[in-house]
Amino acid sequence: MAQDTAAPTPADFALLHPLRVRWAEVDPQGIVFNPNYFVYFDLAMTEYLRAVGFPYPDGLAEHGSDLFAVNASANFRASARYDEEVTLAARVVHIGTSSLRFQLAVFRGGELLVDGTMVYVNAAREGERRPMPVPAAFIDRVTAFERVPPTRK
Amino acid sequence: MAQDTAAPTPADFALLHPLRVRWAEVDPQGIVFNPNYFVYFDLAMTEYLRAVGFPYPDGLAEHGSDLFAVNASANFRASARYDEEVTLAARVVHIGTSSLRFQLAVFRGGELLVDGTMVYVNAAREGERRPMPVPAAFIDRVTAFERVPPTRK
Amino acid sequence: MAQDTAAPTPADFALLHPLRVRWAEVDPQGIVFNPNYFVYFDLAMTEYLRAVGFPYPDGLAEHGSDLFAVNASANFRASARYDEEVTLAARVVHIGTSSLRFQLAVFRGGELLVDGTMVYVNAAREGERRPMPVPAAFIDRVTAFERVPPTRK
Amino acid sequence: MAQDTAAPTPADFALLHPLRVRWAEVDPQGIVFNPNYFVYFDLAMTEYLRAVGFPYPDGLAEHGSDLFAVNASANFRASARYDEEVTLAARVVHIGTSSLRFQLAVFRGGELLVDGTMVYVNAAREGERRPMPVPAAFIDRVTAFERVPPTRK
Repeated sequence: MAQDTAAPTPADFALLHPLRVRWAEVDPQGIVFNPNYFVYFDLAMTEYLRAVGFPYPDGLAEHGSDLFAVNASANFRASARYDEEVTLAARVVHIGTSSLRFQLAVFRGGELLVDGTMVYVNAAREGERRPMPVPAAFIDRVTAFERVPPTRK
Repeated sequence: MAQDTAAPTPADFALLHPLRVRWAEVDPQGIVFNPNYFVYFDLAMTEYLRAVGFPYPDGLAEHGSDLFAVNASANFRASARYDEEVTLAARVVHIGTSSLRFQLAVFRGGELLVDGTMVYVNAAREGERRPMPVPAAFIDRVTAFERVPPTRK
Repeated sequence: MAQDTAAPTPADFALLHPLRVRWAEVDPQGIVFNPNYFVYFDLAMTEYLRAVGFPYPDGLAEHGSDLFAVNASANFRASARYDEEVTLAARVVHIGTSSLRFQLAVFRGGELLVDGTMVYVNAAREGERRPMPVPAAFIDRVTAFERVPPTRK
Repeated sequence: MAQDTAAPTPADFALLHPLRVRWAEVDPQGIVFNPNYFVYFDLAMTEYLRAVGFPYPDGLAEHGSDLFAVNASANFRASARYDEEVTLAARVVHIGTSSLRFQLAVFRGGELLVDGTMVYVNAAREGERRPMPVPAAFIDRVTAFERVPPTRK
C-alpha cells in the first residue's frame, strides 16, 4: 500500500497545480470529504497530460486509446479545509506495457496532506476496450518531463 | 495492495445494500466516475454502522469519538453504468487499538465490479482529535454481526 | 418565480420517491448544500419518466430525441439534514410544443422543504439538437398518469 | 423569472473569475450537468465576498450572521464542455432589509452560457437562525464595488 512508500515532497514533482478548496467539497466535519481527494487526483492527472502534450482525452484518442482507472489508493495524513489554497502534484512513476502508474499528492505549502496512487490501463476507445501498448511518443514525452524517469517493465 | 486479496463475493458480507446509479455519478465515458465509488463505500459504511446499532455519527459520538479516514483504496474491475441497480457491501475485517479496517465492494448481481478497503481511526471529536480506543460495545456488536470475526491486533 | 405559486403538498403528486440524505450532500452548515437539491430534482424526474414508461434516456431516444434543461428554479424553505429520509416528488405541469415543465418538491413527512421548477426542451439527439415535438405517446402517458392534467399551449 | 431580464454581458460585472470545467462536472451528454452550474454560482459568490472584503464565512460571522440560500434560478442558454475555460460573474442587484439578491453568469469568451439569480437571507448563525439586518459596512462595500448600485427596498 502507499504507506510503504516514502512521503513525497513538492520537489519530487515536475507538475504542480494550484487549487482552492470549494465549499461543495467540505463536509460537516469541516474538512474535505475523502472521495473529493480522488477528484483532485483526477485534476492533477489532467494537468499532467496537458503539460506533456497529450491533453485529455484528445492526446491519446489520436492513438485510438483512452485511459481507464483500474486502481486507486490514498493516504489521508492531514485535512484540507474550506477555502484553503493547496497544491496538487502528479508524476508518472511506472510505465508498463499498457498501463501507467501515477503518484499524486496534495500539499499545503510544504506540508503533505494526502498522497496516493492511480493506475490506469491504456485501452481501445471502441469495442471491448482491449488494452493497447502505451504510445512511444507518450513515453518519450513523459521521460523528458520527469525528474526521475519512470520505471519500466 | 487490495489486488493481493481474493476477490470477495456477496456471501462474504452480512451487510448488503441496494443502490441505483445516478446520472450525476456517470461521466462522458458512460461509466461511474471513479471517485464516486468512494462515495458508494461511504454509503455502505453508513449502513453498516446503522446495522450494528452505532448509527453515524451519534453512535460513536456518545463515546466521545468520531471516525476519520486515513487510507482508502479500490480496484476497478468492471464499470457500473447509468441507472443500473447494484449492491453495496461492507464488512469489518480488522479492529486495531484505535482503528478499523473495512472491506467494501460493489456487485452487479453476483459480478464483482469494485472492491476496496477503507481504514479509519477512532479519534476524539474535540481538540486535537487524538486516537481513542475502539469502544468495547462496538467490538462486541461487530463481532456478533460478522460472518468471519475481524482480526485483532 | 416559483414563490408565486401555492406551496405544493404530497397529495398533488402521482410520483413520490424516497431518498436518504448522504454525507456527501451535506455542507459545513450541517444542511444539504443547495445545488444538491437540483440533483434530487433530477432523480425525481428520472423516476417520473420510468413511471410513465419512458425510462431515461431510452424512452425518448426511440423517438430520436433527448431532454435538455433550459431553466431551473428552487425555493429553499427549510433544510434537510444528514441521514434524514425525505420524499422526492415530480409532476408535469405544462407541455408545450417541444418543451416540458416539471414541478418538483422535497418533503420531510408532510413538511415542504424545497419546491421548484425544471423546464426541458425535447430536442434531436444528433446534430444541432433542434427542438422536436413532444411525442404524442408521451403526452398520452403523462395525461393518464397525472392527477391534474398538464396545461397545453 | 430570470428570462424576463435582459441577457447580461461581462461588462456588467465588477467580479469576473476564471474557471476550467472538470471531468467530474460533465455528464454522458458531454456537457456540464445542470446542478453544477449552481456550484459555479456558489464559487462566483465566494469570490465576490472576498473581493468586497467579507470573505466567506468569517466576514459576516464577525457580525454574528451567515447567508442561507432561499431561492435559486438559472437559464441554461448554451452548454459548457469538458476542459473549456469559462468566466464566472457575480454582482449584487438588490439589498433588502435582511436579504441579498445576486445575479450570476457563466460566459465563454463574450458568449453567455448560463445566467441566474440567487437570493440569500442574512440570518443569525446560532439558535433559530432569525433574519438580521444586512450590516451597513457590507452595504457600503458593495455599493462602492458595483458599477450599478444595487436597488434597495
